[in-house]
Amino acid sequence: MKGKVYLVGAGPGDPELLTVKALRLLRTAEAVLHDDLVAPGILQLIPPTAQVHNVGKRCGKKKILQGDINFLMVALASTGLRVVRLKGGDPLIFGRAGEELESLRAAGIPYEIVPGVTSALGAAAAAQIPLTHRRASSAVVFITAHQAAESEAADWCKFVSSGATLVIYMPGKNYSDVMRKLTQAGLEAETPCALVSRATTRHQRTHKATIGALPRAPQLAAPTLLIVGEVVRFADPLAMAENFVVPSIPAGRNSAVPATLFNTFTSQVTNFGRDEEPIA
Amino acid sequence: MKGKVYLVGAGPGDPELLTVKALRLLRTAEAVLHDDLVAPGILQLIPPTAQVHNVGKRCGKKKILQGDINFLMVALASTGLRVVRLKGGDPLIFGRAGEELESLRAAGIPYEIVPGVTSALGAAAAAQIPLTHRRASSAVVFITAHQAAESEAADWCKFVSSGATLVIYMPGKNYSDVMRKLTQAGLEAETPCALVSRATTRHQRTHKATIGALPRAPQLAAPTLLIVGEVVRFADPLAMAENFVVPSIPAGRNSAVPATLFNTFTSQVTNFGRDEEPIA
Repeated sequence: MKGKVYLVGAGPGDPELLTVKALRLLRTAEAVLHDDLVAPGILQLIPPTAQVHNVGKRCGKKKILQGDINFLMVALASTGLRVVRLKGGDPLIFGRAGEELESLRAAGIPYEIVPGVTSALGAAAAAQIPLTHRRASSAVVFITAHQAAESEAADWCKFVSSGATLVIYMPGKNYSDVMRKLTQAGLEAETPCALVSRATTRHQRTHKATIGALPRAPQLAAPTLLIVGEVVRFADPLAMAENFVVPSIPAGRNSAVPATLFNTFTSQVTNFGRDEEPIA
Repeated sequence: MKGKVYLVGAGPGDPELLTVKALRLLRTAEAVLHDDLVAPGILQLIPPTAQVHNVGKRCGKKKILQGDINFLMVALASTGLRVVRLKGGDPLIFGRAGEELESLRAAGIPYEIVPGVTSALGAAAAAQIPLTHRRASSAVVFITAHQAAESEAADWCKFVSSGATLVIYMPGKNYSDVMRKLTQAGLEAETPCALVSRATTRHQRTHKATIGALPRAPQLAAPTLLIVGEVVRFADPLAMAENFVVPSIPAGRNSAVPATLFNTFTSQVTNFGRDEEPIA
């Protein structure tokens, strides 16, 4: 009997920003393969009976190869297990889901993709920045600075000249380098930008700057995102104070949602999930 | 006493793709202002005690002006109500949230933004298309064809030449017009694309085509999205058969999640939500 693989988006960090479906699948998983970027409060929701594998590649340091992840995923499902492949944010944005899907298809393993709140949206909500605005930007571009080849950097010129809001995933620790790439791409040094670190978690920090001032920005903890463009001017000044800490998280709590609550209501979701197969 | 406004993303359509937080807020709302694009199965989750206002603008036919929405939102919160402003997908993408935030700030109304699964991600998951792929695209652009000015159309050239995956929100019914804009922007007629209609609902339809063949595509029901780029080649052929119907929805059901289940487990979420304020 073949199992099934669910490619599931874990959202930006806050366990409450899991989708109801992701939560149900996580609570009923028999095996979970997760990335490093998935927040600890979310991993705590995995039932103790499930096998858990951290298959994170840690920012390029290849602890595990993509081929190994594909192999493990197929192997686990082939033994009949209900496997959740849990990815930070949404699985289809910078998640190498394409390669994983190809492996699953080649092996004839049934699978389903469960979208999630991508990190850019978590960061924008946290910093209160509308990513589009009638008076500032009518398009949004998601790019990554991590592992960006020179050829890709050349494309940044096109995005910059379009006036679209840019959201740079994994901008890295070298803010001078990011500034150089963006100014070489034609961006004015005065263009506003916002660094958002560990968005929607209690460790969230935001820092508003201009592209020119980026090298002097404080080093914020990964995962970070950089939002660039005129829309940053529409951010709430209160939310953008330097090293702003989310005010509404009760101290000493890792998650806004107590585990007991999740356990109680997901046990009911679980029962439902076992009986019927909901929408793909 | 002032109330509070929650700008909440309703996700792409499937009620199970609401975030846990969105579900909790919806179940505890005292007033809800929602767009036309929000799926009926989600509106059914609003408690009968809440005031519900459809403030949808219906594709440009201005039944209600943005200023009226802002006024109503502020007025309801000023009477002390817990108001949910519910938007399809994510509130900060093409949702005019920027203008609503400005009104709330000007009126001194407390607010919070709750991100959601934006429609592009629901559509990509439904059609099984990775939006980025190491061998095809390292960037994604979200644009809208609806109300696009000529100046914006000019920017499409830049996006097209970058090789990024394009996701066009609200492409409209005139597929010939979309084809013309895209080919004028420099896109090859052979470029693959996928129309996705009512993604993640039981009415979901997908249609794979090329840009050149778009004018011959069947008219699909709104809301639709158009995904354009080489990544479409990585779609599952099974998921992309013309007028593909999601196979896993039990017939005669509007939603994958029975209302009774939602009622049971959200009553607990409700109790939690009344006691403490979780993460912003």
